[in-house]
Amino acid sequence: MPKRRNVSMSVVRRLPRYYRFLYQLKNKGVVRISSTELSQKIGLTASQIRQDLNCFGGFGQQGYGYIVSQLCDEIGNILGLSNGYRTVLFGAGNLGTAIANHMSFQKEGFKLIGIFDSSPDKIGKTLADITIQDVKNTEDFCKREKPVMAVFCVPRNAVDDLSSRIYKLGVRNFWNFSHYDIAMEYPDAVVENVHLNDSLMTLCYRISNPAE
Amino acid sequence: MPKRRNVSMSVVRRLPRYYRFLYQLKNKGVVRISSTELSQKIGLTASQIRQDLNCFGGFGQQGYGYIVSQLCDEIGNILGLSNGYRTVLFGAGNLGTAIANHMSFQKEGFKLIGIFDSSPDKIGKTLADITIQDVKNTEDFCKREKPVMAVFCVPRNAVDDLSSRIYKLGVRNFWNFSHYDIAMEYPDAVVENVHLNDSLMTLCYRISNPAE
Repeated sequence: MPKRRNVSMSVVRRLPRYYRFLYQLKNKGVVRISSTELSQKIGLTASQIRQDLNCFGGFGQQGYGYIVSQLCDEIGNILGLSNGYRTVLFGAGNLGTAIANHMSFQKEGFKLIGIFDSSPDKIGKTLADITIQDVKNTEDFCKREKPVMAVFCVPRNAVDDLSSRIYKLGVRNFWNFSHYDIAMEYPDAVVENVHLNDSLMTLCYRISNPAE
Repeated sequence: MPKRRNVSMSVVRRLPRYYRFLYQLKNKGVVRISSTELSQKIGLTASQIRQDLNCFGGFGQQGYGYIVSQLCDEIGNILGLSNGYRTVLFGAGNLGTAIANHMSFQKEGFKLIGIFDSSPDKIGKTLADITIQDVKNTEDFCKREKPVMAVFCVPRNAVDDLSSRIYKLGVRNFWNFSHYDIAMEYPDAVVENVHLNDSLMTLCYRISNPAE
């Protein structure tokens, strides 16, 4: 596949949405969909969708619409969902447990291979079919298993130390639920932050400042 | 406070980030900060920050910088963080438990007043100092306690029914962790979606398509 240049992050962030809706349609057995119908389902204009897809070569035919399974698969390929990137998760508290149990890592391009915690109550227990290990084993495990992605479900002050250990072991991709600013510390890392507090504060703003 | 017109959502989404950094600085006892220092900490240009703050009247003085506690409080006011919006949470599984335990609702402008689940294993137990109620009590509780915000930590197929019940009870603000599209169903609702799957797929794209 040719390298894609200059696809803006706003386009990239819409791709999972396209993929989700198409995947549902595909599972419902929908074969073909017009660009208008698709746009109504997704809540974007047909022209926006066409523009976005054109960044990746364009799909669909004028007057015919899209073949659902084909477009779904192509977007899945663009997203790289079959890559099975080897992933370790730190923190088996409520959030880590929710993430490990409810996220379909495999469907989203990852493979969860290790879970670490520092609490004796957690170590040795099983979560998502994986035995929770002592965080002290991180170096041994990572040298052997070579994960490429780390999920941080630990408090902010634990991420400072952990991210530096994990970075030294070659991990450059992070799914970060803490407020520790990994991207600032390691500019060459790929970091997706999930800032739940920010989302809640944004909601508070929107309630407090209703649109006219 | 005068109504704010036409502040773009990209500006609004940066406010919580400003608030978080300023709150940390304030807690560390920092009194004053230059716009350059602040911009380095936050990872945005000084001119971007100035532009954003100008949407709300502007703060700080040329050549003097910002008074940390004052700016922090003003942004807190803009966000509406002292409003204590009465909030109910649906779903006391791992995700709901993580959200109820770890989010500082009060600090972010909300007050958690009720938690609901349908599982007999959960009902009657205590979570975040609140007794988990049977979801069947939703109507009685909401008529009496008049919440204005609902958090959905339940599966997508449960949100369809729940959001319609809650909407009828007057709730118009939603923090939605499911993939059910509340905003499409109720265009006058204020919805903040947290789509963890989309975040993970975006990460997958970025790993699969490294920037050159």
